[in-house]
Amino acid sequence: MRARHKPWADDYLQEHPEYVILNPLDKKGKWRDVFGNDQPIHLEIGAGKGRFVMGMAKQHPDINFIAIELAKSIIVSAVEKAVEEQPKNVKLLNFDASDLRDLFEDHEIDQIYLNFSDPWPKNRHEKRRLTYHTFLTQYQQVLKSDSKLVFKTDNRGLFEYSLMSFSHFNMLIDDVSLDLHEDNDPLNVMTEYEEKFSKRGHPIYRVEASFKS
Amino acid sequence: MRARHKPWADDYLQEHPEYVILNPLDKKGKWRDVFGNDQPIHLEIGAGKGRFVMGMAKQHPDINFIAIELAKSIIVSAVEKAVEEQPKNVKLLNFDASDLRDLFEDHEIDQIYLNFSDPWPKNRHEKRRLTYHTFLTQYQQVLKSDSKLVFKTDNRGLFEYSLMSFSHFNMLIDDVSLDLHEDNDPLNVMTEYEEKFSKRGHPIYRVEASFKS
Repeated sequence: MRARHKPWADDYLQEHPEYVILNPLDKKGKWRDVFGNDQPIHLEIGAGKGRFVMGMAKQHPDINFIAIELAKSIIVSAVEKAVEEQPKNVKLLNFDASDLRDLFEDHEIDQIYLNFSDPWPKNRHEKRRLTYHTFLTQYQQVLKSDSKLVFKTDNRGLFEYSLMSFSHFNMLIDDVSLDLHEDNDPLNVMTEYEEKFSKRGHPIYRVEASFKS
Repeated sequence: MRARHKPWADDYLQEHPEYVILNPLDKKGKWRDVFGNDQPIHLEIGAGKGRFVMGMAKQHPDINFIAIELAKSIIVSAVEKAVEEQPKNVKLLNFDASDLRDLFEDHEIDQIYLNFSDPWPKNRHEKRRLTYHTFLTQYQQVLKSDSKLVFKTDNRGLFEYSLMSFSHFNMLIDDVSLDLHEDNDPLNVMTEYEEKFSKRGHPIYRVEASFKS
């Protein structure tokens, strides 16, 4: 289906190895070498068209960003943005991140962002939610101690579920906003979805939670 | 000021010792005797005009309810309701609950409700918020192990603060709703404030949190 819409996507990704890491499994434990410096590494899971990661990379040149997006026809938009803006601190992965530990060594990552993740509202799909405890176990392992998971969504059910999931995983809720845009944080970088849903008057929920060491 | 509005309040409370416990400090450790049975005891802090406690008492005849309200001119309305409905499982306390441990023996209480507590929005008033850690320490002490604190409010700032406060106190978030009335819980008993603010379209937040044993 995706190929039908963007038959050129595969080639386009191949043509931009400066932004698209084509063999990410080989980089496990070597991500600092990939960037060529020792800056902290932040990871976005489900990067969509890349608006968030590109905005964050511009705002934080002293941080390296890795953004993972499963859908080829979507991540090409992020690559296009990168080709245009030429950031030095962004790498994009078109990869099914079912186990982050295949990609990252223990404690190789400094912060993780989940933005508007699929809510999987049915109970029987609980295991697919990116805040289900099996994913939290992965995040804890690849993150440095006391590092943060930062999660934004407009989906009330997923946010409520996630607060409970974090709590039962013995994570610490460091910060929470139940109406992010009313808080007017000038440093908030919006995703594509965020702008769309916020304009419709939905509150955007955000939480920063850390793993106790 | 209060006496000016309801000069009869004092006498009225005195005239209804079947509902108003006039010397509550004497009952510490003896609340089961006060009710004359061994039913669980639930405590509401800041009962206002008593709509919540009266509704809960009717819905749960197998639970005893103690409701504390500092303002004499307000609690008289709760007493009037009690005089009219004659519940066997409600006691009302016109008392400044600055330390619950003066009123209750360790583990004497089975559940605590905070409803629409004063938000004290200024940082310098943090200590007065009923979800500040010094209060949580009291709740933990008077509650049985694994018992719940159930908190409802329409105040976003206080709710966000409370989630963080519970988390830092190592409490477990067992249930949370960020729009209680949209959830249409048929067992939800509304307070006077709740009905007023909900009608204005404010979301009502609710959390159940427990102290880990």
